[in-house]
This record gives sequence, structure tokens and C-alpha cells, in this order.
Amino acid sequence: MLEVLAFATPNSVKVPIALEEMGLDYKLIPVNLRQGDQKTDAFRAMNPNAKVPVLIDRSSKSGEGDLVLSESAAILVHLAEKTGQLLPKEGVHRGKVFEQLFFHASGLSPAFLQAFGVALQSSPQPEAKARALAEVDRVLGVLDHGLKHHRYVAGDAYSIADIAHFGWVWRHQAIGVSLDKFPSVTRWYNDVSARPAVVTAIGKTLALAQ
Amino acid sequence: MLEVLAFATPNSVKVPIALEEMGLDYKLIPVNLRQGDQKTDAFRAMNPNAKVPVLIDRSSKSGEGDLVLSESAAILVHLAEKTGQLLPKEGVHRGKVFEQLFFHASGLSPAFLQAFGVALQSSPQPEAKARALAEVDRVLGVLDHGLKHHRYVAGDAYSIADIAHFGWVWRHQAIGVSLDKFPSVTRWYNDVSARPAVVTAIGKTLALAQ
Repeated sequence: MLEVLAFATPNSVKVPIALEEMGLDYKLIPVNLRQGDQKTDAFRAMNPNAKVPVLIDRSSKSGEGDLVLSESAAILVHLAEKTGQLLPKEGVHRGKVFEQLFFHASGLSPAFLQAFGVALQSSPQPEAKARALAEVDRVLGVLDHGLKHHRYVAGDAYSIADIAHFGWVWRHQAIGVSLDKFPSVTRWYNDVSARPAVVTAIGKTLALAQ
Repeated sequence: MLEVLAFATPNSVKVPIALEEMGLDYKLIPVNLRQGDQKTDAFRAMNPNAKVPVLIDRSSKSGEGDLVLSESAAILVHLAEKTGQLLPKEGVHRGKVFEQLFFHASGLSPAFLQAFGVALQSSPQPEAKARALAEVDRVLGVLDHGLKHHRYVAGDAYSIADIAHFGWVWRHQAIGVSLDKFPSVTRWYNDVSARPAVVTAIGKTLALAQ
């Protein structure tokens, strides 16, 4: 049984989405960020970066011990390679999935995180807020450009790169961003939102904070 | 012959380091960021995100066309899988390499980039500068913790994750950060800096701006 330490967050939701899509058994273990549970010594022993999600996979056959893995996208890669699903085994499309996973990690995710931080402030600096939202619009424009030509973010097949981007785009309303200016992102967002695995995973993830 | 569009930047240098380590033939093609060459239509057709580096690999055998790949870490993964070097084929250590690649992309790299942006300002806000440098110290602390127990960032073997982290840590002086507080990072940084492939790649990368 795979164990996933998570909370109701954009990075956490990606892991149950992938697990539901792949039909794997798993147990979600809440890490209450409101109480600072990610800063305990026990949690930091699993992830010194003190962030959810963390996956524990005790099925390693190589005698190397359990795999304790942080970073949502690294978890997605591990699950895709474990099951042979949602990540092409070779070729140009495999490269494009990794390109989008890293564009998510280094571009879209920091932009959304920055804007989310500003949105949480009681009286944010107007220039800081404008700068953060401009970067969100810029990265959504890059995503929209790719989605004009392909159904999914890394080509015509649904992949773990869609799951990665979905995690943060799912929270666009929390940072006051509209997708209306990005028709291809809107089409893709509605498409991914309607997948049964996504609906189920969102329900289970939100329940972690209740 | 692999082509690498690059400039004298932290993300660019990672690619020639990997290529030198792997013994691959390549051609570096300068994209002059000072002149805004990354914002031309020709460059954006390769990378809509308008950032270096970009790799062009025309050796694809699958009839899918050339691979045109952006995101330095995605390029590192492609080169590692192409050559079978610097990335374990399976097991716990493979997972840990991806964990560090994504911790680099979503944690260390945005922290250094933010601090670099502040350092470039003529009169930065003191709080913004302090906040940016505190996050750089935090991520270096996470890296230092891992390097206390292992020679390299993802375990006892040198991997593409070391190359990824090295790209930004190489520029620590440009953002006014000392590594003195991080003895394990200092030991690792000196070790990686002395590798012949790294020395050669840095020379070729700096020459792009001359």
C-alpha cells in the first residue's frame, strides 16, 4: 500500500489524481499545515524542505529500503515509471513531458505561489501585486500557446505533465486570476476537471482539511 | 551534432557541463540576452517561454522529427537517458535524483533568481532584500543537510542533480551570498568545481558573452 502524506494544497492534489488515474491503492495521511505539522522533526526527517506531499513506497525490490520521496513532480515520475502509464517510454513526446514538468516547477508554480502569497496579505503593495499577477498572466499565455496546437500540455496524449499544471491552475480563483483571456487553457482546464479520477482525487484532498 | 542555444547564465552552463561529462559532440550557439535575442519570433518558435537554454537533437529515429527542448533540467534528463550516464536506471537512487532536480527547479532556482533580481536593483527595498536572502539561506540549509550524509546531492554517486544545483550555486557571489555557513555545501561545491568537465564547460559558457 502506498502512503501519501498530504494536505488540501495544489501540490498535494497532483498525487491522488495520478494514483486514481493509474488505479493504484493508496492511503492519504493528513499533515495539517495550519498546525505546522510539516515543521516537526518527524516530518523533516522525511523531507528536510518541510513541504507536502511525500510518498512512501515500501515495495522496492532492490534491497535499498523504502523509497521516501518528496517533490510532487518527482512523485509523478516515479508513479508513471512504476506503472508504465502517462509518460511515454521514449522519443520526442517523452522529452516534451519533462519540459512541461520542469516549466511547471520552475515557471508556473513559483508564479502562482508568489501571487497566492500576495493575495493572502491584508494590504499588499500595489506594485508587488501587479508584478505577481503579470507573471501569472505571462506563464498562462505560454501554456495557452502550447494548448492552441495540442489537446494536452505536452502533446495529444494526457500525461503526468497535465496533472502537474492542473494542481496550481485548479487554484486560480484563490489568487484572483480569470482564465477568460486564455481560451485554450480554459478548454483544457474544463476537460481535465471533468475526468472521474480528478473529481475523486479533489474530493479526497479537500477532505484532508475538514 | 547536438546544438545548444545558450548564453553565460546559470541555467545555460548546466547543459555544456553534462555534455562534457558525457563526452558528446555539441555546438554552442549564443543567444545574446543583453540584446533581447531570446524575445525574437525565431527564438520563441523554439521556446515560447523565451528562456535559454534550448537543445536541438536531430538524431531522433522514430520519425517524429527533431527534438527541440527547453528547460535545462529536462535537457539533462534527455541527455542522461540518451547516454545511460549520470542517472540510475531504476530504484531508490533514481527517485532521489528526480527529487533533487525538482527541488532545484521549484526551490533553489526560484530563490536564487529572486535574490539575483533584488541584487540588480539600484536601491532595493531592505525588507524585500532580507526576505530574498533568507529564502536563499533556507534552501542552502536544506541542501547542506542532505550533503552531510552523502557525497553528492542525491546520494553517493555524482548525477545530473549535482549539475542542476551547481548551475545556480556557481553564481552565489553575484547575489551576495557566502557559503561559509554551509560546510557540506562548500565541500561539495569545491569538489564539483574541480571536475575537468565543469572547468571546460564554464570556460565555453563564459565565452558566449565575450
